[in-house]
Amino acid sequence: MIANFSTRVASLCASARKPLRKGALTKAAILEQALYIASLEGLEALSFGILAEQMRMSKTGVLGRFGSMQALQLEVIELYRYRFEEAVIYPALNLPAGLPRLKAMFSHWSGHICSKRRVGCFYFSFASEYDDQPGSIRDALIINVLAWRQTLTSCVQKANDLGHFHPTADVNQFVHEMYGLILVLHHDVRLINDAKSIERTTLAFNRLVNRCTPT
Amino acid sequence: MIANFSTRVASLCASARKPLRKGALTKAAILEQALYIASLEGLEALSFGILAEQMRMSKTGVLGRFGSMQALQLEVIELYRYRFEEAVIYPALNLPAGLPRLKAMFSHWSGHICSKRRVGCFYFSFASEYDDQPGSIRDALIINVLAWRQTLTSCVQKANDLGHFHPTADVNQFVHEMYGLILVLHHDVRLINDAKSIERTTLAFNRLVNRCTPT
Repeated sequence: MIANFSTRVASLCASARKPLRKGALTKAAILEQALYIASLEGLEALSFGILAEQMRMSKTGVLGRFGSMQALQLEVIELYRYRFEEAVIYPALNLPAGLPRLKAMFSHWSGHICSKRRVGCFYFSFASEYDDQPGSIRDALIINVLAWRQTLTSCVQKANDLGHFHPTADVNQFVHEMYGLILVLHHDVRLINDAKSIERTTLAFNRLVNRCTPT
Repeated sequence: MIANFSTRVASLCASARKPLRKGALTKAAILEQALYIASLEGLEALSFGILAEQMRMSKTGVLGRFGSMQALQLEVIELYRYRFEEAVIYPALNLPAGLPRLKAMFSHWSGHICSKRRVGCFYFSFASEYDDQPGSIRDALIINVLAWRQTLTSCVQKANDLGHFHPTADVNQFVHEMYGLILVLHHDVRLINDAKSIERTTLAFNRLVNRCTPT
């Protein structure tokens, strides 16, 4: 995931030099609205009728920009990936590689989940929505989840390589436990509104880091 | 949750003495089918039309037994609670209170998630489906999740009281971390089919237990 950043950033900068055409702006606005609806009610709740009503456009006008509901859903997943990278990964790249960057990713990821917008992490919400539904949406979701997990794994591996962690620390075990701590935070914040969840997740993450840190 | 077991078992035994009427049997069969559909596609996927087709009944015949879709969904949640208790809680009651019972609950819960039927734990799947949808379904789900978490909390507290754990071990922190480990197992088994997830979750649970056990 990190490896592609420079290419993607260069492409975004190139695009930024020429103003977006009206059609592209409208499509981007529809996608933002679709992401908002999906964040509250899931990808299956998306409908061209509702989007057309909310965007004050014709249903055909919305449909014409995407071609099919599946194409729209796939673009929503892609847009979320950018949002996730902007919120969780990019800011961590300002920190030194290894443990400082890993701690920043943890902090931004938990912050993303606890943000006032309370939309949570789509990778978790969509996982439950699609984990038993084979098809393109599930495939796209799995690709993104695995890419994010690979980014985390590389980050923990770097902490090992740089001597921030014991060389024997189990990288995959670390990522597994870190993932679980963020999952329970997501669950508690969104379902039972437990204010102490962030404190407990942070304490457990710090203990996990300490377990792997040479004394 | 445990406190009501004897009353409920007594009531079930009393019911077992008189054979169920045909109407009750039909309703129970519809509910089983509804639970099966919901386990694969979520509670929102339930429809009286599909149930009627699968049960070879009229749509009115199915609807008449529940009154509304919400009433059917609530009964599905209630049926799942029984299934969960049968799979995870009841067998653990044969073990001594405290740590042995806690370990058995962990083992049965992870086994329930990794079972061949691969339907996962509804408390997690439904959490994502309803965590942003206020109403009776979300309320019923929260009641069940909190009751299960309270059962776990009481079990960890008992381990403290009996000296199986340090008296200073933080009961809520333990339950939080245990919950996270089962959540990541559920996520991995259902979405990315990671065969090593159960091994990693078990290793982390054993470490969590060891951290709280007097040496």
